[in-house]
Amino acid sequence: MAEDENRAIPEETNKEAPKCQTLHESMELLTKHIEQALKELDLNSVSEMLDEILGAKSIFVMGTGRSGLVGKAFATRLMHLGLRVYVVGESTTPALRSGDVVVAISGSGETLSIVDLGRVVKKIRASLIVVTSQPDSTLGRMADKTVRIFGRAKNGKGDYLVQHLLGKYAKLSELAPLGTTFEITTLVFLDAAIAELMVRMGKDSKALEDMHDKLQ
Amino acid sequence: MAEDENRAIPEETNKEAPKCQTLHESMELLTKHIEQALKELDLNSVSEMLDEILGAKSIFVMGTGRSGLVGKAFATRLMHLGLRVYVVGESTTPALRSGDVVVAISGSGETLSIVDLGRVVKKIRASLIVVTSQPDSTLGRMADKTVRIFGRAKNGKGDYLVQHLLGKYAKLSELAPLGTTFEITTLVFLDAAIAELMVRMGKDSKALEDMHDKLQ
Amino acid sequence: MAEDENRAIPEETNKEAPKCQTLHESMELLTKHIEQALKELDLNSVSEMLDEILGAKSIFVMGTGRSGLVGKAFATRLMHLGLRVYVVGESTTPALRSGDVVVAISGSGETLSIVDLGRVVKKIRASLIVVTSQPDSTLGRMADKTVRIFGRAKNGKGDYLVQHLLGKYAKLSELAPLGTTFEITTLVFLDAAIAELMVRMGKDSKALEDMHDKLQ
Amino acid sequence: MAEDENRAIPEETNKEAPKCQTLHESMELLTKHIEQALKELDLNSVSEMLDEILGAKSIFVMGTGRSGLVGKAFATRLMHLGLRVYVVGESTTPALRSGDVVVAISGSGETLSIVDLGRVVKKIRASLIVVTSQPDSTLGRMADKTVRIFGRAKNGKGDYLVQHLLGKYAKLSELAPLGTTFEITTLVFLDAAIAELMVRMGKDSKALEDMHDKLQ
Repeated sequence: MAEDENRAIPEETNKEAPKCQTLHESMELLTKHIEQALKELDLNSVSEMLDEILGAKSIFVMGTGRSGLVGKAFATRLMHLGLRVYVVGESTTPALRSGDVVVAISGSGETLSIVDLGRVVKKIRASLIVVTSQPDSTLGRMADKTVRIFGRAKNGKGDYLVQHLLGKYAKLSELAPLGTTFEITTLVFLDAAIAELMVRMGKDSKALEDMHDKLQ
Repeated sequence: MAEDENRAIPEETNKEAPKCQTLHESMELLTKHIEQALKELDLNSVSEMLDEILGAKSIFVMGTGRSGLVGKAFATRLMHLGLRVYVVGESTTPALRSGDVVVAISGSGETLSIVDLGRVVKKIRASLIVVTSQPDSTLGRMADKTVRIFGRAKNGKGDYLVQHLLGKYAKLSELAPLGTTFEITTLVFLDAAIAELMVRMGKDSKALEDMHDKLQ
Repeated sequence: MAEDENRAIPEETNKEAPKCQTLHESMELLTKHIEQALKELDLNSVSEMLDEILGAKSIFVMGTGRSGLVGKAFATRLMHLGLRVYVVGESTTPALRSGDVVVAISGSGETLSIVDLGRVVKKIRASLIVVTSQPDSTLGRMADKTVRIFGRAKNGKGDYLVQHLLGKYAKLSELAPLGTTFEITTLVFLDAAIAELMVRMGKDSKALEDMHDKLQ
Repeated sequence: MAEDENRAIPEETNKEAPKCQTLHESMELLTKHIEQALKELDLNSVSEMLDEILGAKSIFVMGTGRSGLVGKAFATRLMHLGLRVYVVGESTTPALRSGDVVVAISGSGETLSIVDLGRVVKKIRASLIVVTSQPDSTLGRMADKTVRIFGRAKNGKGDYLVQHLLGKYAKLSELAPLGTTFEITTLVFLDAAIAELMVRMGKDSKALEDMHDKLQ
């Protein structure tokens, strides 16, 4: 680690206390976490998720808080791919129907409103894919498919892998508070899934650019 | 890389064509990019940004599209820290005043509406911090402070570092289309900045949890 | 009605079939509905609602779909008044606490996610005010205070007053489909409540203008 | 008016100062304003707006603040009608193209970001419809079509009609501060336009209900 720090901190500030040391440690932890969590991804479940998305009439994405923001970022790219995609709660999101696929993002798998909407999804007989750190959660158990992201959920469950990998950090929850590792890893995973979908759909970067919102 | 792949792909699927190969390559590229871009961060400019945030009466965050989502994720954590923070465009965002700090997120630094609002910020004599891949852009040049994120902006500028580091990928823009590397790196950077702010403010993870929205 | 039509439709088009006749009828119905529903308002319950809002530490507004949009429009004005107000689901909304007041807007009083969040509100021992056409609904029954708006909820309940008043319109639900009358009447009521709060707080229009978001 | 007040205020409170008198006056003003402003609508321009909407490949709605919320409420209903509609700034809004129609809502017609986006709309050669109180504004002048709503814009322009009609209210801006009359009247007008579109498209209330978002 000493070596890394030498690289990151400019020499002229090296004699005093290093600037932004916690920022530096947090970035190291987050990067390692992403790297490890992505290696642990079950590619079979990922591949099935992508098949479902490609076979869906419409795709609906849902999540609350920062997980909801990650979901919106994914939905934006699915739209760039030319897929019919909606974010639950936005103004022009239509009725969900059988044949549609819902991607729910919840680290703990216990987010109240998402669990409730999950029940509605099942009742409508749409397909429910859950991206979560807790496949055994209420939401995980009602899913048609789950993709497990090794991240610490807000409630602290799921820490064991993180602790094991990154044991040297005594202050894990201070370097990546609440659901941070889950949210970041999920964003990276979903963006990589977009790259995979581009290949499967024969789309290039230019095709996505053409779909990009011009009113910004 | 062969070694990595062996770890990531379960043995029973190893004999056929590897599953989700593009996903795998994209995750590798994104992880390396985050790692490298964070090492390239100018910690002096980061430290000044954090000083401004801590000294602000109110903090306003703005961005469009996926950069706007990253901004919202940052704003959520600033609120968890107990800071007075608003997202430009949300329903209860009040008038900006002198003494406030605006954090604008734009990979290209040329996003039309953000550039225009940047002008209003300067007129009101609030402080403008720009997180961008292009400090020489219109937005970068009007900023009081810039933090440079080495990411490819949507318009393809800024590729050189990425190309240099990750040269083996012929299809860079297919593995991380449009502003993906900027958006992801910025999210990780801003989350690490939250960890740094926690230390500076003497807050622990429990304090953030107490502020977390309960109506989800 | 013939008289009204003569006034509204310019003479030169009067000889042909009148332009936008349904628009015209719908506007007449909506205007009459607003007028009548506002007369039916129970001012005691309104006054108690305003007392609660003025006594709250923070005010939280929640609703889904178009009721949620009406709630956001109300929240914007409460912010203009200088009150501490948040919209449930926005990025910087903090934890609800005892001593806070939640204003829930739901025509039917049965909106799944709002009913669920209502239970959380009660558990936290914050005050729950429900603006609804159905005070006997699940949400209405759990409220600390309700304000009844005579509007047709999406499920068609509550029609009786509307039918009685506006009986001549055979096609009521075609002139104001789904929750339209509830949503419009609630917006007008809440905007009038803002005028009342201005007087009680000694604020004038200029004070509100000063708080108005400048980054638009 | 005395008669109205007797009806609205319960007898037991009648002896003291009337409850919520400003609320009552504001509701009366708002109702009269809606009624009058709708009578003043130019049905030819409305009819042309509806023709454009029905002929559009896709419809985009834009506005900021409370005008933006009114736009979202309109967009929700256009979606219920089965039209292809997007709200500018939402996550899954695609690129605007020639052949599309943009409905911009701005009381003053001078809202900075909407004016800027209006220029982009013209450059893309999409059709720009502006709903405004100020057809002579920057936005109004660049529009392909305008629909004039007699409401007071935030900047106070356009008051003359309101003052003329409702002259007895000395405190007009206190009973309906900022853009209130514009926003409310526009919502009622656009909801009446939905009723007109239902007839033109042969849709009934049931068809709209079927499209209504079930995940709430």
